[in-house]
Amino acid sequence: MTQEPADDIVDATYCALCKHGYAELTMQDIADECDKSKAALHYHFDSKQALLETFLDGLLDDFETRIADLDGDDPVERLFDLVDTALTPPTDDDDESPDAEFKTAVLELKAQAPYEPIYRERLSAFDQRLQARIESLVAEGIDQGLIVAERDPSDVATFVKTYLTGAQTRFVATGASFEESRRLLHEYVRTELLVDGEAEVPA
Amino acid sequence: MTQEPADDIVDATYCALCKHGYAELTMQDIADECDKSKAALHYHFDSKQALLETFLDGLLDDFETRIADLDGDDPVERLFDLVDTALTPPTDDDDESPDAEFKTAVLELKAQAPYEPIYRERLSAFDQRLQARIESLVAEGIDQGLIVAERDPSDVATFVKTYLTGAQTRFVATGASFEESRRLLHEYVRTELLVDGEAEVPA
Repeated sequence: MTQEPADDIVDATYCALCKHGYAELTMQDIADECDKSKAALHYHFDSKQALLETFLDGLLDDFETRIADLDGDDPVERLFDLVDTALTPPTDDDDESPDAEFKTAVLELKAQAPYEPIYRERLSAFDQRLQARIESLVAEGIDQGLIVAERDPSDVATFVKTYLTGAQTRFVATGASFEESRRLLHEYVRTELLVDGEAEVPA
Repeated sequence: MTQEPADDIVDATYCALCKHGYAELTMQDIADECDKSKAALHYHFDSKQALLETFLDGLLDDFETRIADLDGDDPVERLFDLVDTALTPPTDDDDESPDAEFKTAVLELKAQAPYEPIYRERLSAFDQRLQARIESLVAEGIDQGLIVAERDPSDVATFVKTYLTGAQTRFVATGASFEESRRLLHEYVRTELLVDGEAEVPA
């Protein structure tokens, strides 16, 4: 078995992004987080962009695993779990938590996407995976008679992912509450999608 | 009457932001856009942040004027006009237009908000103005029997503005189509808010 020192570097990138943000991030910051020299970093990655490309690929894998394995006994419960996963408040209810800072770094990457095709490509891959997952949940929900048959799974998926993106942006830009964003999306799902309306109130 | 040379500087800031983006923007770039020296710029503004603060105040004034004066014969038509204003595609259908680049610069500012309290304060002011305007349109719509009485104007306003924010972020991050985002929000308004449902299809 060969070692994968690049894995340490990817972990260190998360910590460095949380501490410094994207705009200020240097290869030295990442080197400091994993006790490696800048030269060792450059042995694996030509540039900050190349490193972040690998980092985003790792996040995408984690994301796929997470949304493939949602909690719930039926597609509607799994849809609520997906919403709650996307709109979980930072761990310590404090904008200064690493999780809040990571969300800020992700928004910085989104704002760089028009200038960096590799970011746009990765962000589009996230967007497509999320689209496919919500679409399949809504289609299953319709098949099982839980979701109104007139709803178009593709339209619902685009609408929901647009809303989720907005909730994440508003959290970073204005400190908007994830709890409120989540409550309103739950309400949309209940009143707009479910056959059984108010009966399907999640815990 | 005194001249307001600061006005030229604010106009130049728009052009410079479109050309260079926020992260790369320098006082020299702005000076170049208005044929002033950097020293002349510093006479009016201590820093890039101070200049952008004034710039954001100007945008906020324009935004208030625009959303106070929406087209339409009733509150529902005015709500559709507000949606269309927020989700107008860049002028030449090309991601390289100044309008598309300005949307990118605004997203960069949003991503800087956790680090720059003056940006967060201004962005929160936009958010609050938009909230108040949508709330008042929905409340009027309910009063006039056009919008379902059970809808809570404050919840609808938060939901719609979250969606609008998401559409703008997705445009920058992944090139998502404003036309599609707009179509889906129109559909939400018709099916979820209007008493008269499908009858109220806007042109």
